[in-house]
Amino acid sequence: MPETLWRASLVLALYRNRHVAQARYLQLATIRGDGRPANRTLVFRGFLGETDAITVVTDMRTAKVREVEATPWVEACWYFPMTREQFRLGGRARVVREDAGDEADRQARRDAWRALSDATRQSFTWPMPGAPRDPAVPFVAATPDPEAPPADFGLIVLEPVEVDHLELDGNPQNRWIFRRDADGRWTGREVNP
Amino acid sequence: MPETLWRASLVLALYRNRHVAQARYLQLATIRGDGRPANRTLVFRGFLGETDAITVVTDMRTAKVREVEATPWVEACWYFPMTREQFRLGGRARVVREDAGDEADRQARRDAWRALSDATRQSFTWPMPGAPRDPAVPFVAATPDPEAPPADFGLIVLEPVEVDHLELDGNPQNRWIFRRDADGRWTGREVNP
Repeated sequence: MPETLWRASLVLALYRNRHVAQARYLQLATIRGDGRPANRTLVFRGFLGETDAITVVTDMRTAKVREVEATPWVEACWYFPMTREQFRLGGRARVVREDAGDEADRQARRDAWRALSDATRQSFTWPMPGAPRDPAVPFVAATPDPEAPPADFGLIVLEPVEVDHLELDGNPQNRWIFRRDADGRWTGREVNP
Repeated sequence: MPETLWRASLVLALYRNRHVAQARYLQLATIRGDGRPANRTLVFRGFLGETDAITVVTDMRTAKVREVEATPWVEACWYFPMTREQFRLGGRARVVREDAGDEADRQARRDAWRALSDATRQSFTWPMPGAPRDPAVPFVAATPDPEAPPADFGLIVLEPVEVDHLELDGNPQNRWIFRRDADGRWTGREVNP
């Protein structure tokens, strides 16, 4: 079992499911301040450069930023409907905010902002997420500059240390578990589904 | 805002997405023994009778059983691809095992077992989930009796106390948060997406 076969399998799943919009949606579980889990759908925005790390974008005003910064252990669950396979990606996450992180992180944040649609960029100018909706407050603002990510725009980078890959279409199903050790080396093995 | 509009909205979403198999898949986040989150795709098996509680089935040998029994707070994230809406259902979960629970729970467990396909029932006879796969161990067993759920079959019942319903198709998006108080009364309000 090649050590990092999970990344090749994930790249392949992205390709095979490329015509299904929701194949780029994953569910990210975090820990709330009261110790309960939170779970929401996010859009995969690519790997961080050539690394194994997964990126998603976030409004800095949302609870997930506080949750990840207080408890960096997260698990993403990612289901691919065309190929009927699931990846569970557990690991540490970090939030890349304005004027923070190393140059690779800063560049990834700028690139992610540029790659968004105008409509998604506009959503970062909306009133406070989760606050009571006031019909008198307008939502539509001027189109933000694609070259200048605002302070409310953040990038979340997930560095997996354990990946559980399940193929439902086998009979029986096929499943592999990959783990990264403290030295960054991956090992994988096939397990019972 | 009617108090339990979330349940009507969920029933409607199930109906509108009925031709998409994965619309019955939700992601359940739980807390591991080490405090990290876990997250996996499960199949919705219906409400518990006429209540608001959500049911899924489980192999009793899997980690989620130990996780839910140690820390009952969970959050399900449920995305509906046809109508582009998401429900986040946070609450307490319980595991209904053989010879446990009240009569409604026991009946729901028997009904859930009977409603499974033969192939899914067979999966409960497979070797230990997550253990290294041994090609010498056969997976296919005799077809289990639909009237006699085995000890390894369990039902997980999630009783939501907070529901976050997001419709992506609005412009701006529409979002409501519903909460159940200690007396079981629901209140809901519209919030910013």
